[in-house]
Amino acid sequence: MTQIHILSTGTELASGRSRDGNGPFLCQFFSDVGRTINSMTILPDDPEALIAYFHRMDGQTGPSQTTLIVITGGLGPTEDDHTVDVLSRFSGHPTTEDPGALRKLQWVARKSSRVKLESARRQVRVLEGQKVVENRRGLAPGILLEKETSAGGTILVLALPGVPSEMHPMFESVSEDLLSRLPARSMERSVLYVYGEGESSFQSKVIEPIRDDLSPDFQWGITSGRGHIRVFLESPQKREIALIEDSVKEHYRGRFFHRPVEELIHEHCLEKGYWLATAESCTGGLVGKLITDRAGSSGFYYGGAVVYSNDSKVKVLGVSQEILDKSGAVSEPCARAMASGLRQRTGVHYSLSITGIAGPGGGTEEKPVGTVFVGLAGPRGSEVHPLFFPLDRERIRDYTAIMSLFLLYDFILRNEQQ
Amino acid sequence: MTQIHILSTGTELASGRSRDGNGPFLCQFFSDVGRTINSMTILPDDPEALIAYFHRMDGQTGPSQTTLIVITGGLGPTEDDHTVDVLSRFSGHPTTEDPGALRKLQWVARKSSRVKLESARRQVRVLEGQKVVENRRGLAPGILLEKETSAGGTILVLALPGVPSEMHPMFESVSEDLLSRLPARSMERSVLYVYGEGESSFQSKVIEPIRDDLSPDFQWGITSGRGHIRVFLESPQKREIALIEDSVKEHYRGRFFHRPVEELIHEHCLEKGYWLATAESCTGGLVGKLITDRAGSSGFYYGGAVVYSNDSKVKVLGVSQEILDKSGAVSEPCARAMASGLRQRTGVHYSLSITGIAGPGGGTEEKPVGTVFVGLAGPRGSEVHPLFFPLDRERIRDYTAIMSLFLLYDFILRNEQQ
Repeated sequence: MTQIHILSTGTELASGRSRDGNGPFLCQFFSDVGRTINSMTILPDDPEALIAYFHRMDGQTGPSQTTLIVITGGLGPTEDDHTVDVLSRFSGHPTTEDPGALRKLQWVARKSSRVKLESARRQVRVLEGQKVVENRRGLAPGILLEKETSAGGTILVLALPGVPSEMHPMFESVSEDLLSRLPARSMERSVLYVYGEGESSFQSKVIEPIRDDLSPDFQWGITSGRGHIRVFLESPQKREIALIEDSVKEHYRGRFFHRPVEELIHEHCLEKGYWLATAESCTGGLVGKLITDRAGSSGFYYGGAVVYSNDSKVKVLGVSQEILDKSGAVSEPCARAMASGLRQRTGVHYSLSITGIAGPGGGTEEKPVGTVFVGLAGPRGSEVHPLFFPLDRERIRDYTAIMSLFLLYDFILRNEQQ
Repeated sequence: MTQIHILSTGTELASGRSRDGNGPFLCQFFSDVGRTINSMTILPDDPEALIAYFHRMDGQTGPSQTTLIVITGGLGPTEDDHTVDVLSRFSGHPTTEDPGALRKLQWVARKSSRVKLESARRQVRVLEGQKVVENRRGLAPGILLEKETSAGGTILVLALPGVPSEMHPMFESVSEDLLSRLPARSMERSVLYVYGEGESSFQSKVIEPIRDDLSPDFQWGITSGRGHIRVFLESPQKREIALIEDSVKEHYRGRFFHRPVEELIHEHCLEKGYWLATAESCTGGLVGKLITDRAGSSGFYYGGAVVYSNDSKVKVLGVSQEILDKSGAVSEPCARAMASGLRQRTGVHYSLSITGIAGPGGGTEEKPVGTVFVGLAGPRGSEVHPLFFPLDRERIRDYTAIMSLFLLYDFILRNEQQ
């Protein structure tokens, strides 16, 4: 039996003033290689809380068991960094300075008046006789401590700095070695993205009817995304994964994929040589941001307009004043005119427009907050999809952006089939 | 002595496949009202791990001490939801169905073929004799359990659903009651946003020279933001906060604020009646997205262009072909022409342009990945700021977006002073 625990230290994290990215990164890593995480913990920079944590882990590790603890943070030069001292107390190994890290610090201190050698020297300390993990991007070295537990098991503690750009390569440099000491069971996995569906409805449609056929080894989970859900399936048996996937195909034809639509649009457009343009009102540039998140998007993304004001809808996209007067900026005709005008003016193959009321103000009884129109124009004409998300501003914008990308991808595929 | 612990349950979270938002939300809440969090933990949906957690908390709570545990998740209808059973085992109170929640479930089941009453009925269970927290946005009620510990202290467990839109209002409905049972010490706090500065440099410039004057009660922390740092100061003494702030003023005149620049731009432009427009190349809409994150931005944000292709820079902004041929799209003249062209064509007071190489491809020796030009145009002329962020694509875009907003705000203020 092996156990894996993740510990992030920092008063900033425990006060909610910063979000921990290291814990999720490490959980994801171990999950990807088929290891289960037993706990992920955030503790403030309090040496007593940290030492209590390590003693507890010691007590939980029975004879011939191995517990791996990856702790990030608390290795810096300031007095609120306690990791080395805590590990020294926990293991009984005295601290010592790592010669390589010290030389680097001396060099930096000579070069920069910003670093004072004596006050920064704290951070090059390691544990006597224990493995040092080199930090190529920063000053504080990491530590890999191995300790026999009171019951005769083994505790491995990997202590790394909290700065992600330092932590990631350091972790990678020792991860293979760690994994070789933590045996795993082989599992089949699948991820599904289902658009325009919610968690509970998916569960009652897909999982409940076949629950009795699923083995106790089968694991699954749903994460609610923005306008879609991500479903994770895991089982030692291929058969169980296939069973669920068949049911999903039946219920959600054309609405589910194995990857997010942003990725699919990217690859599809590059492959086919399509150009895209976007015109966004209430999402304010979010769709453009999502499209250009991936490198290489300049090969298919022409660009777009953030037409937040009515004036810009007229000037930039050529929406007629008549449409604005008669139907308003948030309307089916306006969305259509935006998409068509944009396609005409840019010469792209496909254009996407969004106009809506993200709130909290601006809603009316007829067009409440959350009312959105997505316009699409392509080689075979245009269409408009009315959407309605009775949510808060942030989620209206997020859901609209993702759903509009799904609608665009679907539109492109349908244009090809005709 | 009171303790506050946050526990998020979910195999999805412990595997790193989803990120926990509830823990940070709760940490932030308690921090904002001056309470310190003792730990934040994520556990997978494993009843044994959960019960061990509660027993441990019980053991840690001495006579006349109070420990509050807020647990989110594990209250749903599926078999991987264990919170109610675990709390029942921990407290000895049997489970029972909450009549109000059951009536609601029956109503939903009648209305929707998607919900099967019998399989969903699990989630309306609560603990006999313990307070129920109504869930107005979902089906599963929350539970507030009060239990005497073995040593004669008190454990309060607030169990809430994991869905944030349900959890937040439920938490708020009981938070006042909880706080009244957790005494706090009054503290002075200050938050500073310093643009164009890094963590270690701030520390050696501002903190180290006066470290000996700071009391042990003084707490501070730095979070590395995108192109800026956030500094948190906390002390029972106003004097200490003022000491740091004076030093910051001296070192970072014009580069620090008490709020992020997005907020300051928003308020300033609304107050003065300024209109803004943006033209983004490598950030692809991210600046527009940041500006429109806040409601009310339609009162000063004209909109903008996402000019990802050279063609769009010419057509939409009127950048001359000569500039593109001679200097290239990522250049000082192009950034200037983009900002000026945009201002001219839209008639806004201030315009902002961004052109750069976000990578990973497209870099040259002369213009490596991370090279960015920010153009600004206003009533008194235009200027261009070359930036360089030798980072990865995501961070180049994030840093550029935030730094460009800082430059814009600074530009507006300087235009007014002249």
